[in-house]
Amino acid sequence: MFNSVTIVGVGLISGSFSLALKEKGLAKNIIGVSRTQTSISKALELGIIDEGLPIEEAVKKSDLIYVAIPVDVTVPVMKQIMDMVTDKQIVADAGSTKNALCTALKDHPMRTRFVATHPMWGTEYSGPEAAVRDAFIGRACVICEKEKSDPHAVNTIESVYRQLGMHIIYMDADSHDLHAAYVSHISHITSFALANTVLEKEKEEDAIFEMASAGFESTVRLAKSNPAMWIPIFMQNKDNVLDVLNEHISQLRKFKSCLEKENYEYLAELIENANKIQKIIK
Amino acid sequence: MFNSVTIVGVGLISGSFSLALKEKGLAKNIIGVSRTQTSISKALELGIIDEGLPIEEAVKKSDLIYVAIPVDVTVPVMKQIMDMVTDKQIVADAGSTKNALCTALKDHPMRTRFVATHPMWGTEYSGPEAAVRDAFIGRACVICEKEKSDPHAVNTIESVYRQLGMHIIYMDADSHDLHAAYVSHISHITSFALANTVLEKEKEEDAIFEMASAGFESTVRLAKSNPAMWIPIFMQNKDNVLDVLNEHISQLRKFKSCLEKENYEYLAELIENANKIQKIIK
Repeated sequence: MFNSVTIVGVGLISGSFSLALKEKGLAKNIIGVSRTQTSISKALELGIIDEGLPIEEAVKKSDLIYVAIPVDVTVPVMKQIMDMVTDKQIVADAGSTKNALCTALKDHPMRTRFVATHPMWGTEYSGPEAAVRDAFIGRACVICEKEKSDPHAVNTIESVYRQLGMHIIYMDADSHDLHAAYVSHISHITSFALANTVLEKEKEEDAIFEMASAGFESTVRLAKSNPAMWIPIFMQNKDNVLDVLNEHISQLRKFKSCLEKENYEYLAELIENANKIQKIIK
Repeated sequence: MFNSVTIVGVGLISGSFSLALKEKGLAKNIIGVSRTQTSISKALELGIIDEGLPIEEAVKKSDLIYVAIPVDVTVPVMKQIMDMVTDKQIVADAGSTKNALCTALKDHPMRTRFVATHPMWGTEYSGPEAAVRDAFIGRACVICEKEKSDPHAVNTIESVYRQLGMHIIYMDADSHDLHAAYVSHISHITSFALANTVLEKEKEEDAIFEMASAGFESTVRLAKSNPAMWIPIFMQNKDNVLDVLNEHISQLRKFKSCLEKENYEYLAELIENANKIQKIIK
């Protein structure tokens, strides 16, 4: 159990992490760090944090510092934190990209105190109000560059995630970013683009609103996601995301060509192939 | 209350419709019609139908004939049924396209006995096992060409859907097919194409399986949908679907171009615009 945990960022992931730590009795005191006082007040009100402090004071008081802010800001903030920590403290992040951060920290003298993690859980909402109880359960948590972290620090973090109901998978940062492009980043782009398609062409908003069924909602719900979080992810993972996006456009063109040419045999093949996804997601 | 209802097709929609009729006490006896004996046996076993009969016998015995089979087969089967019905009976369909069917029936001498409906509910599963209790609740049901149906028949069907928890919206068949392309058909194409993208490029199935988060699952779940149902929908609604698909590809290209040119201001604009979908879907 931690005496004191700092969450940097008081939003969807850090807030849900904090609620889960409290629920499991894993932290006596949780400190919130945020650039905006409104978020701190909201997080206090929602019982996500016990106090709000400036980053220097918060880090000094904490056994664990958990960083969950947009991945572009993560790099400088994490450097600032790493410059402050002692070998009694553990630092972890929850970012959706891992390569940029791991590269930025690779030569830091305190590198062993850092554990690079990506809990594969999220929703389309953001901010302290988006934090939910019982997040993370049944999902995977990726840990990157395990060998560069202190074994005790890794074990501690793994134990926390496991108590939150996650299972751990290990990966190097490059592989993580590649796979994340497929299983997460592209889904967000297709949702954003689908929302724009409908908003562009379908002028009768009432018709969408009235007719939208569960299928539409599920494919488009990620389009509500926060640009402040997602633009830095796409930026940092640009090459992988572009590869996947090019492939996706070419897959869509196959559907287009089938329809134009009324080639229904090939359309059946495409759909039957897509059905194979049921082997992978239940 | 109906003495006897025939469901033609014993799958996701008709099965769920049947379970709901029973639940609400709206039908004494439900007859199933299917091309395959296996489906009839399964539907009997699941309590979806009370008996299975050939279509001629079933129609003869029923107050309401409810057709929910792939939209290509719907046209000839519906003609066959309409040739048999009397002015005491009501026929309705649940198809995802309305233009082809309404056009095919427009000069039928019994046209007034037919009510063209599309309950905007479904899942990615099919067959009798896919039928669920409490389907339809809170969703819209579109009724097309209301003025061509007998008012009493329309009222009866509307009352059934309302008792199932649906609200009714009216539309001509052309408008329905256009809007359906936006709020339903394109979602299926993007899901199929996304599944193929991932299956094509991501050779490490274990990585997808392990890392797939809720976001991926929701955008790709429609890719499990049945080609026998969806190919005829895309065929019948080809022009609308192609229009929407072309727009969607051009929206995706904008994301591609932003990433390639590192034009993050425009990327922010695209995402902020997509966020407007939250006004439309809650």
